[in-house]
Amino acid sequence: MGILDIYAMKKFINIPSEYVIEMLAGIYAAHPRQLKYVADDVHCLVNAVPATPGKVGLVTGGGSGHLPLFLGYVGEGMLDGCAVGDVFQSPSAEQILNVTKAVDQGSGVLYLYGNYSGDILNFDLAAELADFEGIKTATVVGADDVGSASADRRSKRRGVAGIFFMYKIAGAAAAAGLSLEDVTRLAVRAGDATKTIGVALSPCIIPEVGTPAFTVAEDEMALGMGIHGEPGISTDKRESADRIIDRILPLLLDELTFDQHDQAAILINGLGATPKDELYILYNRIHQLLAERRISVFHVYCGEFATAMEMTGFSLSVCKLDAELKGYLSQPVNTPFFIQPSLDN
Amino acid sequence: MGILDIYAMKKFINIPSEYVIEMLAGIYAAHPRQLKYVADDVHCLVNAVPATPGKVGLVTGGGSGHLPLFLGYVGEGMLDGCAVGDVFQSPSAEQILNVTKAVDQGSGVLYLYGNYSGDILNFDLAAELADFEGIKTATVVGADDVGSASADRRSKRRGVAGIFFMYKIAGAAAAAGLSLEDVTRLAVRAGDATKTIGVALSPCIIPEVGTPAFTVAEDEMALGMGIHGEPGISTDKRESADRIIDRILPLLLDELTFDQHDQAAILINGLGATPKDELYILYNRIHQLLAERRISVFHVYCGEFATAMEMTGFSLSVCKLDAELKGYLSQPVNTPFFIQPSLDN
Repeated sequence: MGILDIYAMKKFINIPSEYVIEMLAGIYAAHPRQLKYVADDVHCLVNAVPATPGKVGLVTGGGSGHLPLFLGYVGEGMLDGCAVGDVFQSPSAEQILNVTKAVDQGSGVLYLYGNYSGDILNFDLAAELADFEGIKTATVVGADDVGSASADRRSKRRGVAGIFFMYKIAGAAAAAGLSLEDVTRLAVRAGDATKTIGVALSPCIIPEVGTPAFTVAEDEMALGMGIHGEPGISTDKRESADRIIDRILPLLLDELTFDQHDQAAILINGLGATPKDELYILYNRIHQLLAERRISVFHVYCGEFATAMEMTGFSLSVCKLDAELKGYLSQPVNTPFFIQPSLDN
Repeated sequence: MGILDIYAMKKFINIPSEYVIEMLAGIYAAHPRQLKYVADDVHCLVNAVPATPGKVGLVTGGGSGHLPLFLGYVGEGMLDGCAVGDVFQSPSAEQILNVTKAVDQGSGVLYLYGNYSGDILNFDLAAELADFEGIKTATVVGADDVGSASADRRSKRRGVAGIFFMYKIAGAAAAAGLSLEDVTRLAVRAGDATKTIGVALSPCIIPEVGTPAFTVAEDEMALGMGIHGEPGISTDKRESADRIIDRILPLLLDELTFDQHDQAAILINGLGATPKDELYILYNRIHQLLAERRISVFHVYCGEFATAMEMTGFSLSVCKLDAELKGYLSQPVNTPFFIQPSLDN
């Protein structure tokens, strides 16, 4: 694909085949004290700040095109490394293994990634290879997207923005010195407590493809669409912000039973082109509905946490917090893409 | 304008005339410990955390549609209050005055806002009204946009994303207990040290208007365009990311003379729809050119700092730092929209 093809896309890029390499070069150049790569491969990204000896390692990975997902959560209080794939493509098992070896401190490594067949294949292979090298691994996959399969087919559900809560809670648990077994247990708990659904209004373009993989009509919305444009629940006539929330929030709450001690953390995530103005208009209605149900909100995350390049749309995640999850969610984080001070309880 | 008109826009909104009110309601609901409003007017936003007695107050204001600009910089270590206008419209003098009265601690209030005629008119009137009430004010306007007028017509230059550096540096100076005179001096210094230029590929739609105010052809770019779609230097055939940087970075550096002790802070700002992937591809080239010129980079800010809703495009700001400016830039900030830990010197 030649240089001219980039003008068919409203993107600031050079040669499409160099998209990920140049993006990574920019990231390493911008954040030299926080991020570095190993094994002479820019796709093998790790925290440049040495981990506490004996800390359980946390490794993620997945395709590019979702910043700050996945690599943006590598840093203090969160993840130790990320194997970076091409746009919407899994990284290789070898890349995952290289990251694993770099971050292992002798206490084992937890793999945390989204439920996609390519990623599962390569992470499972990497886990076998790590085992040969004497590195113990465990795996928890994010499968928070209620729009991708019904509750009785949870193993078919995709992982989307809600994986943020798994990263955050498992990251704080690992930083606190918990064992691989306990960090894994907390990642599972965070995953079970988190449900997400997305709504898209326009597609994105993979640079090496050059044209959108699908379209959404001017007056329609794709309900439950995944972060690669996978079909969701339905494509319907557009509704107002409030009516969309009225329709989707119950889909999440129906799968999460809040008791009087639980609180909610809300993640209202822009998929790329949707401004924060609209995310807050959406949150305004979410807040009203949660108040009606007497669900107390502990913290609201509003912004871009898991994108699909320039897709117009948003996703809504609800994480149900008990005291244990809340304690880990409240711990500080400092990565080049995400900073959180300690949250008051 | 009725409910149906919203489907002509790929936006998640309700009634267009309620856009700003609902956005603000969502913001107050999401961040109740950090932000509140005064004078029974949601447009009069102030820090909910009481300021240190005697601290100089910092007040900004401007039209909506630019989040996190302007209100997103109200918080610990940065601004004390913001008068919020309608989309791309100035707040009223009365709203500015109400914010001024709420944040004044007896040491005076500095007005920091962008160089737009409506804002100047209303802030100047508010300053007169504040004077009647015995509140001393000073004013510094942001005029960092080199694409809006030539260097010999700096009073005509618009204020765009580079105002971030004025907020950050003046905010740290006020937090350190400096006088109104000294905080003002530092705001002027930060403004003089900061130059910005924007490049747009597609417009945005004002909700109450419903159609874009301009278009950019598929293979063109608007060089120097302002954050309301104001014309800039020229509309040209699109170029690659690297060639765009090769062309615009010298426009900024030509107005900033770096000596061997100075360092640069870089702000690569998404205007709305442009993904972080591309901002880092752009930064990759910026980094190369700065290295060629032997300009040392102190810190890189990459993300959305001053947007135009769903506009596709970016702006690049360079702030030239001496030891004094760097010291204040390095101080921590914690607002609902922007968090910075202490930066190492």
